[in-house]
Formats: sequence, structure tokens, C-alpha cells
Amino acid sequence: MLTLLFAAALQAAPAVPPSPPKPWDAQPADWVAIPDDQIMVITFADKRHVTIRLAAALAPQHVANIKALIAARWWDGESVYRVQENWVAQWGDASEKKALPATVVKTPAAEFEIGSFAAAARMTRSDGYSTISGFTADGWPIATDGKAAWLTLCYGSVGVARDALPDTGSGSELFTPIGQSARRLDRNYTVVGRVVEGMANLSSLPRSEAAMGVYATAAERTAIATVRLASELPAGERPQFQYRATGNPRFAAYIKSREAPETSTVPTGASVCDLAVGVRRKLAG
Amino acid sequence: MLTLLFAAALQAAPAVPPSPPKPWDAQPADWVAIPDDQIMVITFADKRHVTIRLAAALAPQHVANIKALIAARWWDGESVYRVQENWVAQWGDASEKKALPATVVKTPAAEFEIGSFAAAARMTRSDGYSTISGFTADGWPIATDGKAAWLTLCYGSVGVARDALPDTGSGSELFTPIGQSARRLDRNYTVVGRVVEGMANLSSLPRSEAAMGVYATAAERTAIATVRLASELPAGERPQFQYRATGNPRFAAYIKSREAPETSTVPTGASVCDLAVGVRRKLAG
Repeated sequence: MLTLLFAAALQAAPAVPPSPPKPWDAQPADWVAIPDDQIMVITFADKRHVTIRLAAALAPQHVANIKALIAARWWDGESVYRVQENWVAQWGDASEKKALPATVVKTPAAEFEIGSFAAAARMTRSDGYSTISGFTADGWPIATDGKAAWLTLCYGSVGVARDALPDTGSGSELFTPIGQSARRLDRNYTVVGRVVEGMANLSSLPRSEAAMGVYATAAERTAIATVRLASELPAGERPQFQYRATGNPRFAAYIKSREAPETSTVPTGASVCDLAVGVRRKLAG
Repeated sequence: MLTLLFAAALQAAPAVPPSPPKPWDAQPADWVAIPDDQIMVITFADKRHVTIRLAAALAPQHVANIKALIAARWWDGESVYRVQENWVAQWGDASEKKALPATVVKTPAAEFEIGSFAAAARMTRSDGYSTISGFTADGWPIATDGKAAWLTLCYGSVGVARDALPDTGSGSELFTPIGQSARRLDRNYTVVGRVVEGMANLSSLPRSEAAMGVYATAAERTAIATVRLASELPAGERPQFQYRATGNPRFAAYIKSREAPETSTVPTGASVCDLAVGVRRKLAG
């Protein structure tokens, strides 16, 4: 594999003894269960999944709406109808005429910001979008300008699409950034979660060259069969996820290891989105 | 289009008078021709193209190698053999055993850095990877830590794949970031150019879940029919591109307009990669 990037990753051949633990390796207790009712499973008509962790505590009004939409089976039979190159994939009701269930608040107040910058771990440097960024204790990437605080948008974040006015997104139309400039949307779109599995099923969809990347024909859309909370699925089909806790020396060392990687010729730096999604499937046994 | 992002973009209906010019609008003279021998056209077997602007002045040794490889038709019949989710697409000789032509320097010195931070326009804020970033007069995104200077890696940049040692990339295996963390590679990989057209033909390719995203089977690869310089193509097929010059008040205003967009509820900030690729097809007439 001479010319591949990061050939060092291939050096773990069976004959080589395992590396000693690194200061940034998580300990088993650092992995904490995510409640089943904070995991949203989208199943496409072709059986592929996109699985999302919901930011229940940080965008409570919109996550409540999303749970009500799931309970009403509102997305079943809808589609991914917009995929714009280096920007977003978006799903929901392509006609935008489907009535919302009575259990959904039509125009909840925007939840662009969160109460405080309660970071359990921090990046060393400021960036082009905030003075300080870091992670909540349970792993959400957050930022502040010294006054307000917010959940950042990164590649794979799930945001609430809306009209020009801030309070116009119910949560029925959702999007995820599939390019590099997600943070341009910080504090302007409510973040309700993050894709934790199946991101490639959105990011590799064909792009549309029509206005704003909305597919010009229904045939181009990716059909959604069902959207469920993990807690609704039969026990045997229910995926179980864990987040990596950030309020410990291992995670602080992990940030440092990404800001100055051992494998780099020089310290490259890092930004909060580079380290996002410390989420994994619960290990068997 | 009630719930779409940036609905304002759709307001340019025919009956509405055109908006007055903005301070950040380029003037016609700001668009400057890119020489035909700095445009590399990859044509897949299915006729789709990926077009790359070469950084001839900033990575001269590796661009010379690339031109020698094109002249030898070295990539014709090769493939895109690696597509790793939220990381890179990579192309060249999947076997890594094909001999290089005698006209190619096998192990050129790495060109991770450039001579000086000669920025004609600058971003306002530092970021997680550099103290200052900006653009060369002819539009390449660059950065510095106050000592060294380098061409940044962004989504769509074209870099030279290599082995663990720095001076091990000839330019025969190339990659482009297709996710958000391209700048993690800054100063560790030689940047030879940037995709200026057809990026979706790389970014929407199926991801491989095999090690490092290298397709496990030849059938998964995307076949490359030809790679040519635009200057080699018949005049009628030759694409002509222009870059946006950055050393003028319009580009400075453009940076400001992205750092604090009129359409945002708050200033969002921006980073150098958000503004990269000020390149377009030459307009007809």
C-alpha cells in the first residue's frame, strides 16, 4: 500500500505485538449508553439505514416535535428530495403541503442557541466561527463567542430546515451537511442531532444540479420506508449506541493528539468538528 | 419552497427588478484566464469529467511530474480505487506496481510548504490550523503560523498520496478530500491543485468500508478513460476557465460578506476553505 495516506494504520499485522495504550485511549467506563428514545432510525425503501442521535436536552422543543412526527408515522413514505453538492442532503415531504399532526407545534421558537457554554473539554484554539469551542460532557460539539453559546453544525449534524424567518421550522423537514462549510450555519439553524451510522447513505447520493439541489423529478428521490425511535423497535432489531464521555483526562489527551498528531511532520491543528461523533455501537458481551 | 434553506436565493423571479450591485460582486476584469496547460481533464469511461486547476507555481516539481505522467498517458485505463467516507477519494494505479515513465522524478522533495505567505486578501480571524489565512493574488487558499507558509487543503483540493516518509509521493497517486477535515492534512501533503468542475463525480461515488476505503474488488472502481491537459484537447472541446483575482476591494468585501452574511440572524464567521474555488468557465461571447 505504498502510496496510500496513513499507511501506518495498516501496520497492525497479526505478528506485531499490540501497541501499549495511549493516553488518549478511552477506558471502558468512558462509553456511556445513549437512551433508546434518543436514537432515530431512518430506513430507506432499499433497506439501508441512517441512524441519528437526537439532542434531546439541547433542542427540546424541536426534538419533542420530531418524536411526535415519528409517533404519527409522518415520514413513512416520504423521501430524501434534495442533495446539493458540498452543501446538504434534506428529507421530509417534498411537496411541503402535507399537514402536520395535531401533536406537533407548528412554529416552535427557534433553538439556535443553548443556555450556556458548559464544556467539559475544550479545543486549544479559537476558530473562524467562535472564540472557544469544545464538547458537552455527553459529547455534543458546542461553541461560544463569549456571550451566546450554541451547538455547532458539522458534517453529519442534523438541522431543521426553515423559511427565511427564524421561527419557521417545525422539524418536519431536516437536513444534514455533506460538505465542508457546515459551520456557516451556526446559530442560524436549530441543531436537533447528529448522524451516528449510515452517513454514507446520504453523502454518496447523486447530487442534483437543479436550483438548491432539489431533485427535478420524483424518480431521483430516495424513498423513506419508515422512521422509528430505537425504543419502538423489537429488542432483537434495536441498535444500542454509546457516547464517549468528554470530562476526563483521556478525552483532553485525545484533543491534544488531534491538534498535534504523532503521525504528522508538523502540528496540523484541529477544529471541533474534526473530533465530533464520539459515538459507537455498544460492544457485544 | 417554504422549508428549504436559503429560500431567498429563489426570489429572483423574472418580474422582480434586478438587485443593485453589491460591493462584493466581481467586476468583469476580476476574472482572469487560467492557462490551458494548467487545466487537467480526467474523463471517466462513462464520459463524465473531473477538471482540476494545477498549482503550477506553488508545487512546481510535482506539477511537472503530473504533466509528464499525462504526456506518457500513464493514467489512461487506471481508476478511482479508494473512496473513504468523510475523508478522501483517490485515483491512480490500484496495483501500485506500474512503472513510472523515465520522464518522471521518482522521489521529488516534498512541497508541503511555499516560499512565503504572499496573501493578496486575508481572512479576519485565525483558525484552528493557522494564525493567518488568505488567498494568493490568483486565488489559491494559503495559511501561515507566522513562520512557515503553505497551500491549505480544503474539500476539493488535490493532494499527492504518499507512504509514511514525506518524500515518497511522485504525483502518480492523487487524492481529493470529500469530507470536512481536509485541513488536518495541511503541511503534511503536497497540494498540486483543486477540482474546479465535476467534484460531484468524485464526492458521490460509493464509499468502501474496507480498510482505508480502498475498494475490495476491481468491479467497484471507477474507470478512467483518459487524462489530458486542456491544451492538448481539440479547440472545440477545450474548456476555458478563469480565476477570480483577490487583490481588489471587491474580494475583500466578499470575505466580509461571508464572515457576516446579510441573510444570517447573527455573524456566522467563515474560514478560508469556505471561500475557496473562485473559478468559473469563461463566459461565452
